[in-house]
Amino acid sequence: MNKKIVLRDDEIPRQWFNIIPDLPGGLAPPLDPETKEPIGPEKLAAVFPMGLLEQEMSPHRYIDIPDEVLDLLMIWRPTPLVRATNLEAALKTKAKIYFKNEGVSPVGSHKPNSAVAQAYYNKREGVKRLTTETGAGQWGSALSLATNKFGLQCVVYMVKISFEQKPYRKSIMQTYGARVVPSPSLETNTGRMMLDKLGDTPGSLGIAISEALEDAATHDDTKYALGSVLNHVVHHQTIIGLEAKKQMAMTGDFPDVIVGCCGGGSNFAGLAVPFVPDHLDGKTIRFVGAEPASCPTMTGGTLAYDFGDTAQTTPLLYMYTLGHDFIPPGIHAGGLRYHGMSPIVSALVRDKIVDPMQLPQTECFAAGVMFAKTEGIIPAPETCHAIAGVIREATREPEKPQTILFNFSGHGLIDMASYDKYYAGELFDYEYPAEAIAKSIAGLPSV
Amino acid sequence: MNKKIVLRDDEIPRQWFNIIPDLPGGLAPPLDPETKEPIGPEKLAAVFPMGLLEQEMSPHRYIDIPDEVLDLLMIWRPTPLVRATNLEAALKTKAKIYFKNEGVSPVGSHKPNSAVAQAYYNKREGVKRLTTETGAGQWGSALSLATNKFGLQCVVYMVKISFEQKPYRKSIMQTYGARVVPSPSLETNTGRMMLDKLGDTPGSLGIAISEALEDAATHDDTKYALGSVLNHVVHHQTIIGLEAKKQMAMTGDFPDVIVGCCGGGSNFAGLAVPFVPDHLDGKTIRFVGAEPASCPTMTGGTLAYDFGDTAQTTPLLYMYTLGHDFIPPGIHAGGLRYHGMSPIVSALVRDKIVDPMQLPQTECFAAGVMFAKTEGIIPAPETCHAIAGVIREATREPEKPQTILFNFSGHGLIDMASYDKYYAGELFDYEYPAEAIAKSIAGLPSV
Repeated sequence: MNKKIVLRDDEIPRQWFNIIPDLPGGLAPPLDPETKEPIGPEKLAAVFPMGLLEQEMSPHRYIDIPDEVLDLLMIWRPTPLVRATNLEAALKTKAKIYFKNEGVSPVGSHKPNSAVAQAYYNKREGVKRLTTETGAGQWGSALSLATNKFGLQCVVYMVKISFEQKPYRKSIMQTYGARVVPSPSLETNTGRMMLDKLGDTPGSLGIAISEALEDAATHDDTKYALGSVLNHVVHHQTIIGLEAKKQMAMTGDFPDVIVGCCGGGSNFAGLAVPFVPDHLDGKTIRFVGAEPASCPTMTGGTLAYDFGDTAQTTPLLYMYTLGHDFIPPGIHAGGLRYHGMSPIVSALVRDKIVDPMQLPQTECFAAGVMFAKTEGIIPAPETCHAIAGVIREATREPEKPQTILFNFSGHGLIDMASYDKYYAGELFDYEYPAEAIAKSIAGLPSV
Repeated sequence: MNKKIVLRDDEIPRQWFNIIPDLPGGLAPPLDPETKEPIGPEKLAAVFPMGLLEQEMSPHRYIDIPDEVLDLLMIWRPTPLVRATNLEAALKTKAKIYFKNEGVSPVGSHKPNSAVAQAYYNKREGVKRLTTETGAGQWGSALSLATNKFGLQCVVYMVKISFEQKPYRKSIMQTYGARVVPSPSLETNTGRMMLDKLGDTPGSLGIAISEALEDAATHDDTKYALGSVLNHVVHHQTIIGLEAKKQMAMTGDFPDVIVGCCGGGSNFAGLAVPFVPDHLDGKTIRFVGAEPASCPTMTGGTLAYDFGDTAQTTPLLYMYTLGHDFIPPGIHAGGLRYHGMSPIVSALVRDKIVDPMQLPQTECFAAGVMFAKTEGIIPAPETCHAIAGVIREATREPEKPQTILFNFSGHGLIDMASYDKYYAGELFDYEYPAEAIAKSIAGLPSV
């Protein structure tokens, strides 16, 4: 029985896919928050290298992957596509379920797909130092891995509560040579202001983004890296879907349903968007973006221009958002606690191509345990959301012969504390935060 | 650049290799501790299934791998062989360095190679429940994964200090449905006796083995599983070396040096022994078994009959041993803290085929950090010993063109607490425990 479909190294995709030219309704440009006019690359060049800004705004459907990037990606890529036959049997479904296993990267998630590319373009343009933020630590680990390989310094502003509660992730970043700073810190004006204002605060992703941006903007040799949301990050992640297309072709099956979990949107989009042209060409595919009920950006938010961070320092992005002031409850899938959504994914939701699905966290952990017991691999809490979505899809009409493909975005070996809480009955499903969302959305910037 | 050499699923070895018929000096049989006569399978059948005992004593060079076992192994196998070009460059060595990446299994180590086979043979013979011990938790995780797949119950006696200090491993086992019992426990006579005698003790592997054995011996439907040392475990692990031989052939290189870390010996032997016949046929290969200076079984112990556990309940095995009373210092490579050594590896040391090498732990962690920074993958503390050995081999005569192959037995993502201690300067190298070894060896059973 051939459960696992593997590509040879020489079958790895050599170009990233850019869905923007194919978006039926187009993509609204990012705006300068001061002028409310479309922002030009020159203004963004203070914090991003031109190579990435060109990709961010590229009109081309395909972008060549540099050899130096491919060399590093091939440490773990191409990743396996696996038929989840045991999960299918346990669910008593006629659906075929396939997953793309992105957990095989050295840091256990899909994040290095973009981190390697971002480090490369910064290095190529003479940048010496990269700053970023990290919540749970997946993105920070990935960027630390990548910057180390290209000889760049890396400073990671890590949300203070994670810094204290997730020491393993911090140590992983340090092992790759990164400096990890608990945020808010004394190293930036934003950090000092927040410490003055809030005292002993657990920190937030919004503050950490502002600190990382300020650090980059105030150091000549330094730029900033973001692990999701932006177009170029989505492009880099399409290597997942491009590989999956080749692998699905080897099975003789074609996906009727594609599922991924959505925080900023990049792992879901990375798998899904290479299949969007097939859908537009007439192959019916249901694209399901699984998001937490407690941070329901696509299902409970609104499509509007908003800041990417709490301190309102980023350009305005046109996206589904819960408002930049929205503070999600402390659910255990830290990677999904973001108020916004990638503009590309947002456009696909608007165009009725992507169907968002809202999931409570206990259902997700139950799905994750079922997956571990059937397929043998323990999923990250974020990935559990995708699996819960798959289970809903596969069991709604169990007799329906259909093919479901999902992104196994990362393993959960470093997230076992969350499983412990689940086993101990200490995890619960938050009430839908209707009031907080309404209040936060009322504070959206006027455009 | 093709750093990674991958086999297709259909190239996976379909037989395990048994080195025993090729051992120049043969293998001394295990003895009944009461009669001091060779022990027969009927006496061992109380705790092991006949399928494994047949393998333990098999005269055949090859043993078929059942399809049910192969199906599960193929969740992550064949594993990649990787050329460590960046490590080579950092070491300024002309040596080519290859590693077999066993860290890609769902629990992050080579351990499931045997766990899956052991669970299968127990299941086939109607066993309902398996017991085992675990120190650091790698073996317990692997057996939990395997028993779950075959629908067996699993009880893991986990050394109490690890149970408390390594909660992630415990949660992994629970996720796979195992019951994890801190040892010493109230569930066995040995456990109760030890609690009476020692009070609030951190426990030891020796006690945990005794508890797991007693549990198996006193329950009809229950047998016992061991994660290293025994012949059948070594056989199961040869799939590593058999794959590596095929992969090395694809590179056009052949190993001059083969390195692995040695606790009970199974990961080292798994890689090494399929190459031993080549060595005996005239290809000079240096086999290096890397062991901790603080638990120097092969370099500081003696070759003698000894018990596998502290409570003297196992058969007597002819092996290098520090004496069953030896308590190794609490080094951070828990998987290497064992007083004995696989009889197969011991015979290879006796026959001057394997060269043991003693390594202090700080040198090993430094090697691990160097590997993480060059090759991108963070090694487990045990694996760091192999890497430190490789670095010594590759830099002794850096101009020498030679090929070094080592076993990357597991990743360190769940062991970051040890790295933290290393970074904090809290790890030191223990003095060679000469007095403790002498005292313990004086207590060896007379045969």
